[in-house]
Amino acid sequence: MNIREYISRNEERFLEDLFALIRIPSVSAKSEHKPDMQRCAEHWRDHLLQVGAQKAEVFQTPGNPVVYAERIIDPKTKTILVYAHYDVMPPEPLELWKSDPFEPVIRDGHIWARGADDDKGQGMIQVKGFETAMALGLVQCNVKFLFEGEEEIGSTNLEAFCEAHKEMLAADVILVSDTSMVSAETPSLTTGLRGLAYWEVEVTGPNRDLHSGHFGGAVANPINELCKLIAGVVDENGRITIPHFYDDVVPLSDEERAMIAQVPFSEEKYRQALDIDAVFGEAGYSTLERNSCRPSFDVCGIWGGYTGEGAKTVLPSKAYAKVSTRLVASQDHAKISQMFVDYIASVAPKHIKVKVTPLHGGEAYLCPIDLPAYKAAEEACAIAFGKRPLAVRRGGSIPIIATFEKVLGLKTVLMGFGLESNAIHSPNENLPLDIFRKGIESVAEFYRIYK
Amino acid sequence: MNIREYISRNEERFLEDLFALIRIPSVSAKSEHKPDMQRCAEHWRDHLLQVGAQKAEVFQTPGNPVVYAERIIDPKTKTILVYAHYDVMPPEPLELWKSDPFEPVIRDGHIWARGADDDKGQGMIQVKGFETAMALGLVQCNVKFLFEGEEEIGSTNLEAFCEAHKEMLAADVILVSDTSMVSAETPSLTTGLRGLAYWEVEVTGPNRDLHSGHFGGAVANPINELCKLIAGVVDENGRITIPHFYDDVVPLSDEERAMIAQVPFSEEKYRQALDIDAVFGEAGYSTLERNSCRPSFDVCGIWGGYTGEGAKTVLPSKAYAKVSTRLVASQDHAKISQMFVDYIASVAPKHIKVKVTPLHGGEAYLCPIDLPAYKAAEEACAIAFGKRPLAVRRGGSIPIIATFEKVLGLKTVLMGFGLESNAIHSPNENLPLDIFRKGIESVAEFYRIYK
Repeated sequence: MNIREYISRNEERFLEDLFALIRIPSVSAKSEHKPDMQRCAEHWRDHLLQVGAQKAEVFQTPGNPVVYAERIIDPKTKTILVYAHYDVMPPEPLELWKSDPFEPVIRDGHIWARGADDDKGQGMIQVKGFETAMALGLVQCNVKFLFEGEEEIGSTNLEAFCEAHKEMLAADVILVSDTSMVSAETPSLTTGLRGLAYWEVEVTGPNRDLHSGHFGGAVANPINELCKLIAGVVDENGRITIPHFYDDVVPLSDEERAMIAQVPFSEEKYRQALDIDAVFGEAGYSTLERNSCRPSFDVCGIWGGYTGEGAKTVLPSKAYAKVSTRLVASQDHAKISQMFVDYIASVAPKHIKVKVTPLHGGEAYLCPIDLPAYKAAEEACAIAFGKRPLAVRRGGSIPIIATFEKVLGLKTVLMGFGLESNAIHSPNENLPLDIFRKGIESVAEFYRIYK
Repeated sequence: MNIREYISRNEERFLEDLFALIRIPSVSAKSEHKPDMQRCAEHWRDHLLQVGAQKAEVFQTPGNPVVYAERIIDPKTKTILVYAHYDVMPPEPLELWKSDPFEPVIRDGHIWARGADDDKGQGMIQVKGFETAMALGLVQCNVKFLFEGEEEIGSTNLEAFCEAHKEMLAADVILVSDTSMVSAETPSLTTGLRGLAYWEVEVTGPNRDLHSGHFGGAVANPINELCKLIAGVVDENGRITIPHFYDDVVPLSDEERAMIAQVPFSEEKYRQALDIDAVFGEAGYSTLERNSCRPSFDVCGIWGGYTGEGAKTVLPSKAYAKVSTRLVASQDHAKISQMFVDYIASVAPKHIKVKVTPLHGGEAYLCPIDLPAYKAAEEACAIAFGKRPLAVRRGGSIPIIATFEKVLGLKTVLMGFGLESNAIHSPNENLPLDIFRKGIESVAEFYRIYK
């Protein structure tokens, strides 16, 4: 039996296994889901034992548990460390979902659920690829699994875990499915990731909500002031105005820009898909450069004052925003984090109080394309997708990838199978069944090739 | 028995009557309180009949009911039309209240509850002043009562009601207690009110929430853009930048500015009371001028994106704000309302869609201080408070006052007894008992004097 046949014969069971995982609402951003995190970790542990791990364990951390499992073929041969995360983003706004985010369904050839792609679907692709290769006797290297439950909230405790378990985690390279491809027709492997810095900004005006008629015009309004602070961060050319923000950014080479220009991309289709009349970003860069190779500044959330029905006239006491920047290779997230804190302190006017709290951050990452594991992944995907994958940088962040390099001294191959239309982090997250199958095939082929 | 004695002997009952009224949560901004509006109107109707009205009726409107009552002494003598509103502002944020907003308590010599001042407390001052004067046989004019339930949401249906009942509402002057005094030690009567225009702004970016890593930097973020739009409305000198916004504002005369300068005011105490390090407003004007005689622009509420616990990275599809301006005499609110809609349309960039919905508005108002009813009110307050009240302009808006002038051809005397510390529209709204007593005395004296 070959790889494709094995996957086809077992597909129904593979989906059942994924659905059981998805049904555990492991939302790491909300403390009410704490018990679900433990349950999800135990679920993975048991499943990894079922598919071929010799041992598997749930490790407690100060946050959510870490799952470790391994299959040692031969202590003298090479070792792959597979990383995934079992936590998911909050499903809100719930009213926009067409079906329950935690009750997966198959509709129009897609799996619909929170985590269908990020990262339960892709994590399951890794595990079922391993199962397939194991079942067919193709695995030629040792395989270790490291699954965490805090990726969506900054992998707070994983660095310390890696520091404490360096020997257990020793490997030659890391393999991760948590990124996306250019498209279903244009498979690609991710060679770069953006870093991240994230803050909460709290602006305080008067010590209580005031009547806007009695005080309006005489007392600074914290929402107006928050808007001014935010508006000041990005100029009309889409450039971030914080002094020294771009100092450490390595400029894009002409060669890189030429490669990016080869990626099939229609700005018109992009605009149509998002229903926008125009794109907006840093002057002098293309859309594909802006969303992967250049930093960005986004407000992720804002709130303050009266937001209910009707027209309440109030000059509120407080206004809040959650703001983030995506960083690119060579920008230090801790340095940028402090830079923003200092910048806001320097521009905040005397008539308000501003508190900036860094929430999390992570470094950017670059992968060399001559790495043996990268070449094996490239060949494996070429077989499964019928096309050699492009090497591209992506705009998302997986901060832990840079941490692995720092702590474990390992490069990571980002063998991700997501699509933009999978709507990760959004309502109606999904994964095409065809991608699920081809992903599993790619991973199984990887084990066949890599030694 | 004199006025003061009557009030003292009946104080306990007066408070019970006020408390019964406050316990009806007549929040006009929320549709869930619809049944409470009807209940509150009926409560006033029954109470007005108890205290001396010969007839009283609840009139249905397309919105909340209107209460009308009257005591005709002599069809040939003068008539006072007393206006009040029985609706209150939403009590949110509830967690900041020290006691239930709809279960009034007396603590430290104050009544604490939503509506304790605005306008159930002040409305009750009017009614108990009338009761007192009636009981002592002092009323020398006809008295009509017009109580509405939509003042906090723009008095939407009262203009049509006035148009339809001009004869029933015919009077010589209108008397209203819905404003505040300079302080308990410096009684004052309000001679000017600001107007209002209020809008909801909706900014749409992409057609769904996006992953800020995959799209950030390449697609305009509706929150960033909303902040830019709002930040652009007021410049660094506190001036509203909308073209022609100030065209119709009558400049403050040197005489008026000299009067305002006589009002006792300590900026240091003002700052301390609000816990702010500096005031902010239009350059070239004092705090008292800014909050009563000059227009203002305040964001009353803002929301969009992820506002829950933790750090969700998202580029949201939508952002919203509720924004308002306070207007001053001679600015037309409808004209200003359209001006803002046109301004936002003219400055909104192509990469977002912006919808501006006018929610409500009202004209500013000025009262001549040689009006006989004004003079009677001045004398009455001087007796109750032991000091002649100052004539001052105030920053709040009672849009219906300008409508009364337009539709009924009547001037209004604003005999208000509020204090800034009463925290109307805010958590822990309250009314000092001493003000409740002196207010009732002032109104009873007014009836004794006015003929």
